[in-house]
Amino acid sequence: MANTVHVALGERSYDILIGDGLLSGELTRLSAKLKLGRRCAIITDSTVRPLYGATVRDALAGAGLQASLLTVPAGENSKSLKVSGELYEHLATAQLSRRSFIVALGGGVVGDLAGFIAATYLRGVDFVQAPTTLLAMVDSSVGGKVAINLPQGKNLVGAFYQPRLVLADLALLRSLPEREFRSGMAEVIKYGVIYDAKLFELLEQRLDALMAKDMAQLAPVIARCCEIKADVVSQDERESGLRAILNFGHTVGHAIEAVAGYGGYLHGEAVAIGMLAAARLSQKRGGLGAADVARIESLLRRAGFDLTLPAVPFAKIIAPMRVDKKAVEGKLRFVLARRIGEVFVTDAVTEADIEETWNVSRR
Amino acid sequence: MANTVHVALGERSYDILIGDGLLSGELTRLSAKLKLGRRCAIITDSTVRPLYGATVRDALAGAGLQASLLTVPAGENSKSLKVSGELYEHLATAQLSRRSFIVALGGGVVGDLAGFIAATYLRGVDFVQAPTTLLAMVDSSVGGKVAINLPQGKNLVGAFYQPRLVLADLALLRSLPEREFRSGMAEVIKYGVIYDAKLFELLEQRLDALMAKDMAQLAPVIARCCEIKADVVSQDERESGLRAILNFGHTVGHAIEAVAGYGGYLHGEAVAIGMLAAARLSQKRGGLGAADVARIESLLRRAGFDLTLPAVPFAKIIAPMRVDKKAVEGKLRFVLARRIGEVFVTDAVTEADIEETWNVSRR
Repeated sequence: MANTVHVALGERSYDILIGDGLLSGELTRLSAKLKLGRRCAIITDSTVRPLYGATVRDALAGAGLQASLLTVPAGENSKSLKVSGELYEHLATAQLSRRSFIVALGGGVVGDLAGFIAATYLRGVDFVQAPTTLLAMVDSSVGGKVAINLPQGKNLVGAFYQPRLVLADLALLRSLPEREFRSGMAEVIKYGVIYDAKLFELLEQRLDALMAKDMAQLAPVIARCCEIKADVVSQDERESGLRAILNFGHTVGHAIEAVAGYGGYLHGEAVAIGMLAAARLSQKRGGLGAADVARIESLLRRAGFDLTLPAVPFAKIIAPMRVDKKAVEGKLRFVLARRIGEVFVTDAVTEADIEETWNVSRR
Repeated sequence: MANTVHVALGERSYDILIGDGLLSGELTRLSAKLKLGRRCAIITDSTVRPLYGATVRDALAGAGLQASLLTVPAGENSKSLKVSGELYEHLATAQLSRRSFIVALGGGVVGDLAGFIAATYLRGVDFVQAPTTLLAMVDSSVGGKVAINLPQGKNLVGAFYQPRLVLADLALLRSLPEREFRSGMAEVIKYGVIYDAKLFELLEQRLDALMAKDMAQLAPVIARCCEIKADVVSQDERESGLRAILNFGHTVGHAIEAVAGYGGYLHGEAVAIGMLAAARLSQKRGGLGAADVARIESLLRRAGFDLTLPAVPFAKIIAPMRVDKKAVEGKLRFVLARRIGEVFVTDAVTEADIEETWNVSRR
C-alpha cells in the first residue's frame, strides 16, 4: 500500500507515491498508465547501480520495454557539462525519441543531473524520479528543480522541469548508510520548523523509531514532507516568492558546504548547523522564543547531528553568502522563524548579526 | 514606425516588432518597459560583431545598463556544448543574476545558441531576440525553439523557451549578402504555401521589389510571416500537432543538408529544393493540382534558387529521413499541400513515392 501525494501544477501535475517495494511493480504499471513510451534510459550512479540497477532494468524489460542503464560516477562531480555531454550522446546513439522517457534512479545528484538531461534532450522528454535516499525523497525529487554545476558554483545551469511521476520506494532506505539517512532527517526537521508545528511535535515524540527506520512510522512522515513541498511548489513553481522558505537553514548551510569543500559535510549535516544558526538569528530578529530555539537544537542533537561550527574565521563564511543566488542587489536574504511552524523571508539580517551568532556559537 | 505582432502564449506572451532602425532606440526603451534588469550579455558572432556589436552595446550602455558583448565564431559549429560551456562560464564570472537578461544578436545560429543559454543559465533568464537575417526574422527568432547540436545530429539538445521580445530591425537586412537574403525568402514563400494563398499571390506580384530589399514592401510581408508563425505557435507551443506544418519542405530539405554536410547548402536553399519535392509529392498524394506545383516552382526559380538535386543516390538521401525527430515508429511523416494556402500532415508517403519523385526530378 502506498501513500499518494498530488503535486498540483495544472497540465504539469503529477503524483508522488510513497511505499514499501514500489520499484519493481509500480514503475512499470504506472509508466504504462501514463503512456510514457516503450523505450527508456535509466540514469543511475556507481553506488546505486550494483544495488538496484538490474532490478529496475529487469522490471521494465519484463514488461516489454527497451530499457538501457547508464551509470555515472557517484558524487557531485558528475553534475557537469562533460558528463551531460556523454549522456546526451548515449541517448542519441541509442536513438531515444521524444516518446522515450528517462528514469532518475539515485539520490539528489542523479535526480538533478538526469532531470536536466530529460529537460533538454530533444527539447524535453518525460522523466520519472526514483529517489534512493531520504534526502532525495523528501526534497530534491519533488518540485522540478534540475541542474548541473559550473566551476563557478553549484546548480548554475538548469531548468524548472517537472517529472511525470515520483516513486519513493521506502525499501531502498534499508540499504542507506546511517549517515546519509541522518542527513535526510535534517530536511524532515526543516519541514516541521517552516510549515507544520504538529509535524515537529510528532518528530519530537517518534524520533527514535524514525531513526531506527521503522517503516510504518516513516511512511506518513515522508508523505507529509512531500505534501508540504508540493504545497509550496504549487504556489510558487519558479521560485519567485514563497518557495524561498524551503531555504531555511540553507544560507549558512550552503556557505559551510562551500568553505569546507563539497564532501566535507553531507548536505543535511551542513543544513543542520545552518538551521541552528537560523534559529538563533530568528530569536534576535524574528521573534522566535528561546524555548523554541532550544527545542530545535535538542531535536537536531537527538538525531545525532554534530552542531560544532567549522573552524574557519567569519570572513570566510560570509563570502559565499554575499554571492548567493537569492541575494538581491547585494543584500542578504534570510528565512527566519516567527515560531515553530511559521517562517518569513527578510533582508533585515545584517552581517554583524551573523558574525555575532557565529562567534557566540563557537564558544 | 514599426509593425507589431503579438505572440499569444498566456503568461509567456510577447511582441515582435518589425521596423527600420529599431535596434538603437527601441531595445533600451522596451527593456526598461519590460523590466528586464540592469545587466545583460549580448551574444553575437564574429560576422555580426563588427557590423552591429558596438552599436547595440553602446545603446544599452548609454541607457545606463551594464552590457557585456560575447562573441562566438560564426557558423553552425558554435551550437555546441563546448561553446555553451564557455558562455556559461563568462556569465557566471561576470556574476549575471536571475534579474539579468541576454540579447541574441545574430542569425539563426546565434538565436538558437543564445536562447538555449538563456533557457538554462540559473534555470532561465529573460532574453531578447534581435535577428540579423531575413531567415531568423521570419522563422527561428519566433516561437521559442532553442537548441544546440550533438555530433549525432542538429538541435538534439534544447528547450521550448520564449523570448520576452523580438526586435526585427529591417535596417540590418541592407548589409545581408544576397545569397543569405534569398535563403530567408524560401521560408517566406513557405508561409504562403502552408497558410495564406493571398500572401503567395502577393509574393508572385511583388517578388522583384522584395528581392531588391524595398523596405516599404518588405515590412508588411515579414510582419505577415511572423503573424502566421505566431498563430501556429500559439496553437501548439510544444510541437505536438499543428506546428509540424511549418516543416513543409523540411523533411527533404534537412536530408539534403545532412548529406551535403552543413555549409554546402544554406538552409533556405535546401528547403527550396525540399519544397519543390514536397509539391510534387503533394500532387501525387495530397491532391495538389499541376498548375499549383508549377506556380510554386516558378516562384522559387524567380527568387533565384537553383533547384537542381544534389548528385547523390536515393539511398543516401532517404537515410536521414528515417531518423528524423518527427518520424514516428519508423514511419516517415510528411507535410503535403492540398492547395496553395492549405497543408496537412500525413504518413501516407512511402519511400517508393519519394524515390520516384527524386528520380523524376533528377532527369
